[in-house]
Amino acid sequence: MIGRLNHVAIAVPDLDAAAAVYRDQLGASVSVPVDQKDHGVTTVFVTLANTRIELLSPLGPASPIAGFLARQPSGGIHHLCYEVADIEAARQSLVAAGARVLGDGKPLPGAHGKPVLFLHPKDFMGTLIELEEA
Amino acid sequence: MIGRLNHVAIAVPDLDAAAAVYRDQLGASVSVPVDQKDHGVTTVFVTLANTRIELLSPLGPASPIAGFLARQPSGGIHHLCYEVADIEAARQSLVAAGARVLGDGKPLPGAHGKPVLFLHPKDFMGTLIELEEA
Repeated sequence: MIGRLNHVAIAVPDLDAAAAVYRDQLGASVSVPVDQKDHGVTTVFVTLANTRIELLSPLGPASPIAGFLARQPSGGIHHLCYEVADIEAARQSLVAAGARVLGDGKPLPGAHGKPVLFLHPKDFMGTLIELEEA
Repeated sequence: MIGRLNHVAIAVPDLDAAAAVYRDQLGASVSVPVDQKDHGVTTVFVTLANTRIELLSPLGPASPIAGFLARQPSGGIHHLCYEVADIEAARQSLVAAGARVLGDGKPLPGAHGKPVLFLHPKDFMGTLIELEEA
């Protein structure tokens, strides 16, 4: 069912500093920051040869990553995003197997405009998983 | 400097259960478990279209992931492995920029027989990074 690893998301307290580490120390190609107001984050994408790293920092007072950074102030890996061909079929199959979809359980438009959903970390070995239709 | 994302490593308390989740619920191709005695872990690789997930469980009394699982008993993402063309050049460049290499600071043979080193999470936004020459 899952296809490509679309991205690994890393929550960071200082987006400019994190982008500089990837650009200057690790020698990677780094995007400009983009505010995702609907998602409460500002993002920088690091382009690797086969996938991307999404650096996330909080945007606004109710950012979904504020709690994560309160627990891990230095930052840390926040989620993995796997691509699926049909997100509704994936959702039905996972729910039938007992997995929990976060929120109201329905796919929503993600940061790239494509439908996404998030799976409960307790059902996936402590890993928050985003599925994105691609 | 960094090239492909070679793998994302997820530490898990029950390797068979984790492999079953990736195989049966997420529909991915999953390897048989392999003991890596020199590294204190047993590994299962999940093959995705563009990279791999490495599921890790402790092997032996002094496993390097025992402490991680004591803090996160359900499991969690343990490290990211980026490929570099020349690990010694990468090491020198990173150390010159102030990054800390774990252990004695020298590359060692990794789980795939190629030289690897680990970078201190505090220098990389809370993320343990493995560099592997490839």
